[in-house]
Amino acid sequence: METAAIYHRPDSEYAYLYETNQFHVRLRTKKGDAKKVNLISGDPYAHGSQKWYKEDKPMKLAVSTDIHDYWVIETFEKTKRIAYCFHVEGTDGIEVLYGDRGVFPFTDNYLEDANTFFRMPYLHEIDRVKTPEWVKKTVWYQIFPERFANGDKTNDPAGTLPWGSKKHPGRDDFYGGDLQGVLDHLDHLVDLGINGIYFCPLFKAKSNHKYDTIDYYDIDPDFGDKELFKKVVQEAHKKGIRVMLDAVFNHLGMDSMQWQDVLEHQEKSRYKDWFHINQFPVESLAGLSMEELENVNELTYDTFAFTGHMPKLNTSNPEVQDFLLDVTTYWIKEFDIDAWRLDVANEVDHHFWKKFNQASVALKEDFYILGEIWHSSQSWLQGDEFHAVMNYAYTETIQNFFMKETISANKMVAGLNEQLMLYRNQTNEVMFNMLDSHDTARLLTISRNNKQLAKAGLAFMFTQHGSPCIYYGTEIGMDGFNDPDCRKCMIWDKEEQDSDMLAFTKKMITFRKHNQELLSYGEIEWFDVRDDEKVIGFKRKFGTEELVCYFNQGEKDLELDLEQKTEVLLANFAETDTKSLLIKQYGFVIYKG
Amino acid sequence: METAAIYHRPDSEYAYLYETNQFHVRLRTKKGDAKKVNLISGDPYAHGSQKWYKEDKPMKLAVSTDIHDYWVIETFEKTKRIAYCFHVEGTDGIEVLYGDRGVFPFTDNYLEDANTFFRMPYLHEIDRVKTPEWVKKTVWYQIFPERFANGDKTNDPAGTLPWGSKKHPGRDDFYGGDLQGVLDHLDHLVDLGINGIYFCPLFKAKSNHKYDTIDYYDIDPDFGDKELFKKVVQEAHKKGIRVMLDAVFNHLGMDSMQWQDVLEHQEKSRYKDWFHINQFPVESLAGLSMEELENVNELTYDTFAFTGHMPKLNTSNPEVQDFLLDVTTYWIKEFDIDAWRLDVANEVDHHFWKKFNQASVALKEDFYILGEIWHSSQSWLQGDEFHAVMNYAYTETIQNFFMKETISANKMVAGLNEQLMLYRNQTNEVMFNMLDSHDTARLLTISRNNKQLAKAGLAFMFTQHGSPCIYYGTEIGMDGFNDPDCRKCMIWDKEEQDSDMLAFTKKMITFRKHNQELLSYGEIEWFDVRDDEKVIGFKRKFGTEELVCYFNQGEKDLELDLEQKTEVLLANFAETDTKSLLIKQYGFVIYKG
Repeated sequence: METAAIYHRPDSEYAYLYETNQFHVRLRTKKGDAKKVNLISGDPYAHGSQKWYKEDKPMKLAVSTDIHDYWVIETFEKTKRIAYCFHVEGTDGIEVLYGDRGVFPFTDNYLEDANTFFRMPYLHEIDRVKTPEWVKKTVWYQIFPERFANGDKTNDPAGTLPWGSKKHPGRDDFYGGDLQGVLDHLDHLVDLGINGIYFCPLFKAKSNHKYDTIDYYDIDPDFGDKELFKKVVQEAHKKGIRVMLDAVFNHLGMDSMQWQDVLEHQEKSRYKDWFHINQFPVESLAGLSMEELENVNELTYDTFAFTGHMPKLNTSNPEVQDFLLDVTTYWIKEFDIDAWRLDVANEVDHHFWKKFNQASVALKEDFYILGEIWHSSQSWLQGDEFHAVMNYAYTETIQNFFMKETISANKMVAGLNEQLMLYRNQTNEVMFNMLDSHDTARLLTISRNNKQLAKAGLAFMFTQHGSPCIYYGTEIGMDGFNDPDCRKCMIWDKEEQDSDMLAFTKKMITFRKHNQELLSYGEIEWFDVRDDEKVIGFKRKFGTEELVCYFNQGEKDLELDLEQKTEVLLANFAETDTKSLLIKQYGFVIYKG
Repeated sequence: METAAIYHRPDSEYAYLYETNQFHVRLRTKKGDAKKVNLISGDPYAHGSQKWYKEDKPMKLAVSTDIHDYWVIETFEKTKRIAYCFHVEGTDGIEVLYGDRGVFPFTDNYLEDANTFFRMPYLHEIDRVKTPEWVKKTVWYQIFPERFANGDKTNDPAGTLPWGSKKHPGRDDFYGGDLQGVLDHLDHLVDLGINGIYFCPLFKAKSNHKYDTIDYYDIDPDFGDKELFKKVVQEAHKKGIRVMLDAVFNHLGMDSMQWQDVLEHQEKSRYKDWFHINQFPVESLAGLSMEELENVNELTYDTFAFTGHMPKLNTSNPEVQDFLLDVTTYWIKEFDIDAWRLDVANEVDHHFWKKFNQASVALKEDFYILGEIWHSSQSWLQGDEFHAVMNYAYTETIQNFFMKETISANKMVAGLNEQLMLYRNQTNEVMFNMLDSHDTARLLTISRNNKQLAKAGLAFMFTQHGSPCIYYGTEIGMDGFNDPDCRKCMIWDKEEQDSDMLAFTKKMITFRKHNQELLSYGEIEWFDVRDDEKVIGFKRKFGTEELVCYFNQGEKDLELDLEQKTEVLLANFAETDTKSLLIKQYGFVIYKG
């Protein structure tokens, strides 16, 4: 047995309170290496007449990656104090104990000393990672405000182009999208069935994307005003739709009063400590290209990426903290928003996010905090910063198999499983899953304009743990390459919309809502994954309920003979009216197990 | 190569800011499995004309356990943003890349996408784990107040026994030790050379150990009063000695006003939410033995361990938090204490300790917070709770080789190395190391009354990372079995003190102080570890300085031929006056390399 590959970390995603009385334990072993893993556990103070530890409890082999197996168990101890170790039996017959001081041969005398065991000293409800219930029930819709709908021509900025007038929008185009447009089209969203809107930034800024904030206290005049925004939130809430805003706290825009003050007054500016200034005098680097900026030897100030017009905010400065926290709470208190999406969240310090979390959740207990992080994010998801991250690492893995075809079916499953094991279950349940956004090419384009493939990808994502998001226009078949092409004007002419895609999306959303509990909480079992035929068969199970999902990416039709006719809940490119199912390439079937 | 054994975790003890511009990276591989490990890193936004990542930088094989190798490197990126992955070359010639999405064959195209790399998105000084400088320079002395010295007979509790009158003190004995006694004997401590006192609890409580607090705002009248305590701190400070108090915040004593109020008024008590009460009516369980308590099916309230007279405090209750934080700051503000040692620290919630840290450090920037935790403690040592823990896991490993002889020399080294790799370097530098305490048998007794062995153990501990502590009386050769026997009255009669042990301890403390920088910061190289002969040879290196340490636990004399006569800094049971050193069993030599 490869003992060097065994891994566990107490008080982490490997050992955590899931619900108040449900303690989850995970163990990682080398794939195929362990025949059996048992948890030995008990109250570490129990040392009376009885053995202090309880009987071995078998752990379950939950998921595997290409090199690891993950074993899980749910347990509890009535005194809330748990000492535990793992009894691992290798396929080679070797038995070891793995605890806080490493790996030992399996012998009773090791078990006598509870000090050598892993410890969860006392399971505190206050330390339990909690995530908002409503997010599990939410299907999101992402709106890029400048391109969703122009509801009010009077607020169009100078130089606004006619709606959709360019096949490929330019980087600096304006088309007049605004909040009145959102209000006018709320019915479209209700009809679609979504129940959460994620707005890209709405605050006053110079660019069309508004990630270069000038004033966090104002709605950009191109979009409307605060009164209108309040109405949007109220109307959305009336229709059961939650509202998430985009907070760009990593940097300010160069046109902000604060940055301009620094440029003007230099060391005498009262905002001189608001940024990461490396030396005075500071000169604006906004005119430099990214490449030029990369080659500057000593930057006078830190910027977002290599973009001189986005000076980085110094969030370790208490003044900046107070300012941003006031912004944070202002929009919750005054406008009743339900969530913040945090731009470039990984580059802002943990200290600040902890305060952010406290301030937000104090106002709304079930507030949702979503960080933009593209890589593994454990240290932000310990319960006191974010509830979830934009799950790019997860959805990229889906794309790599379905759209880009760069990995095999098994490699995708391995990647998804590995991602699931990075976080606690309650975190996975509220992860923000999307196959496209304002920062990526559009799903249809990534799918090489193959609509069936796009549908398969979406449906696959909708069957996974986490809260799925539709990027505006994807539901009506819009395409687009990377930014700025993925930010085309929404098509409102019904003739030009893909009504089939729209009908499919509605059906998929309905399916998700009807099966939300199972899809949020249910385990996943990859029971039929075929690399050669590019077939993925998996089950989602929760309680007595079960869904079977089959996706066929292979050229050959996939035929499945069922024991009896089943209830198909969602399907595409498949024949589902008999006891045998036939799934064409890029088709799928989801039926009741 | 065993890729399943490769492990790294960003933003943890595996990847952290050490100093402001020093970023440390560690990687774990299977022992003997990797020939070479290089770090590939760069700014993830650099994607201009040049390759975004820098050249491979070789990592150093720093330490090994019996199953793992740990590779380390120090690096930095001027933009403070680092994406990185590991280029691992196996002894079998296989080369892989290991990054955020797992292990891949070593190919250039993997390197194109920075998203698949580990990320430290922006290295924030505010998030850097900081530990107090002075602790590295401190040699501690632990005082159990009831047994150190009786300086004032007028405050002796009823039934006080004559000082040292029993060979083996009983569990409930009182001998009259007090703060005046400490004051009277400060010169002993100055003479010894220690510069930090760790006081076991001083607050009003019923027992002789005072871990059953009645009133956190009062010095126990058996010990003196607040005025006297203030004097003790002032006098200690004058002599360059810091003062650490023991905070027992996990539970209260049954005689506390708060718990008595609950017992009296039950659900109507204003303190009913101060404890973990499972059901009313609550009856005191103080009369039950541990074993009886273990067998109670439904405890009406949670206790420390199975001790009914110590009801557990509910630190998630804001009222309790405010109360304890006021206690915390009161003793810092009013009495100028330098550190808190936190009793049963692992069983109090993280939320509370974060507030505790903020409150303490806000008053004294270099305040030291030490948790009593006997097991691995990563989640308390992330910079916002404790600075260190009582390093029992480390010192037990030393005892297991030196005193208990239950493990081999190499197994000890493996254990120590593994412990070092659990924490950031700056944490290791302030770990609280002790070979005995009020909670263990005394060192001399653990050493089977072999004084040479006890000296070897102490000297070995003094050469390690961390801040060493002498338990009162160990310096004069006191012995004692487990609690209560390890709490004998301090021997003040010089005739009865072991003057040789005292002289040795002084010399050792002087040695430690003279070589503090090297011993705090220097790396450790275990260059000559022999299981059969029970010999441990290691070097500590810092800059151009080097110490060579040899410990001989084997029956056979250890002879070392040096190239030239060297300067011996500390030795025992050894002949050191020629170019060849001779070390007898249980002897050691530390000389300049």
